[in-house]
Amino acid sequence: MRNYSKEDIQALEKYHRINLINTISGLKSVNLIGTQGTTVSNLAVFNSVVHIGANPPALGFIMRPLAVERHTYQNIKKQGFFTINQVHKEIYKQAHQTSAKYPADVSEFNACNFTEEWIDDFRAPFVKESHIKIGLTFVEEQLIEFNKTILIIGQIEKIILPNHGVLENGSVDHDALGTMTISGLYNYYNADAAASLPYAKIDKSDYIK
Amino acid sequence: MRNYSKEDIQALEKYHRINLINTISGLKSVNLIGTQGTTVSNLAVFNSVVHIGANPPALGFIMRPLAVERHTYQNIKKQGFFTINQVHKEIYKQAHQTSAKYPADVSEFNACNFTEEWIDDFRAPFVKESHIKIGLTFVEEQLIEFNKTILIIGQIEKIILPNHGVLENGSVDHDALGTMTISGLYNYYNADAAASLPYAKIDKSDYIK
Repeated sequence: MRNYSKEDIQALEKYHRINLINTISGLKSVNLIGTQGTTVSNLAVFNSVVHIGANPPALGFIMRPLAVERHTYQNIKKQGFFTINQVHKEIYKQAHQTSAKYPADVSEFNACNFTEEWIDDFRAPFVKESHIKIGLTFVEEQLIEFNKTILIIGQIEKIILPNHGVLENGSVDHDALGTMTISGLYNYYNADAAASLPYAKIDKSDYIK
Repeated sequence: MRNYSKEDIQALEKYHRINLINTISGLKSVNLIGTQGTTVSNLAVFNSVVHIGANPPALGFIMRPLAVERHTYQNIKKQGFFTINQVHKEIYKQAHQTSAKYPADVSEFNACNFTEEWIDDFRAPFVKESHIKIGLTFVEEQLIEFNKTILIIGQIEKIILPNHGVLENGSVDHDALGTMTISGLYNYYNADAAASLPYAKIDKSDYIK
């Protein structure tokens, strides 16, 4: 058994510590965020998208500190629109490649062989190869004082997905759509449905023994 | 293909809409958050833990609006300590049961058959049955104006996990530890490692064809 104190963690070799902390809290969503820049479109992989609310529908994600150029951030602030696109088994290697530090005038859509898809009048590019596509408007950002990371909040304006990707109760069938999950920045996992559990109620006979 | 506008989403049957929005952004981490109340310990399942930073090491999670009593929130604000504990294949049904609305004087540890574990002098209870245990101090909260949800930030003070749960490079081996992932509030998935991809570099010969 390993039992690390704060001092033990600090004393770990740098990349060992980064890998440990990046992966310690479990498996995360992995998505491609698409934006429109001044000259080219931008696409970047994120592992921090979280649910913010269902009514009005909103999602959030964490942006690292603005110590270097963050094209996704600049584009969202300038344009007010962004897309969140699913990463599945057939595209995860391409999706990962978007994390390379391309200059601002190179579109990761081109560099990583994705196809920009412009749907209806939505003002940010979707990823044609993703099965689930979400269009959002920027509504809020919160600066985290602790380390200057930023929580970005977007309201959902548009959702596109195949008919067979939605179960009768409205839940997305991530099994059918091959949605992947990620640990840290580069450990990709497949997911297989274990069970959909009923709404938990207080009833002594319901307690799990 | 389904193409929902904001108005289409709003017009969906209420639970269909909630399920769709809760599950649309992919698979999430699933963890048990443990706190110490005035009279009993509290344990609750969360699907919103995100990575905030590796140095200093910090995690965050989303707390729903304080329109009703939130024992986890009250305890964290009062005590300043909380634990994040992994959900794995052997305990996910018990973990899910903690989401039932138990009164403040009932400990979900007892009601859901988990064992409180107090480690060293850390002032919040860990879940003995979890393989990965993280102790944190509360450092910051950010109120999201859009819908009054709250981002809670904690600094990592302590990590406990088995030797075989850490790979040589420091990454946690979630395969070996049976870590689960969740879509929405009740769709639990198993995860199977697909690949750990190398750090993405810009090199035309590296582009994925």
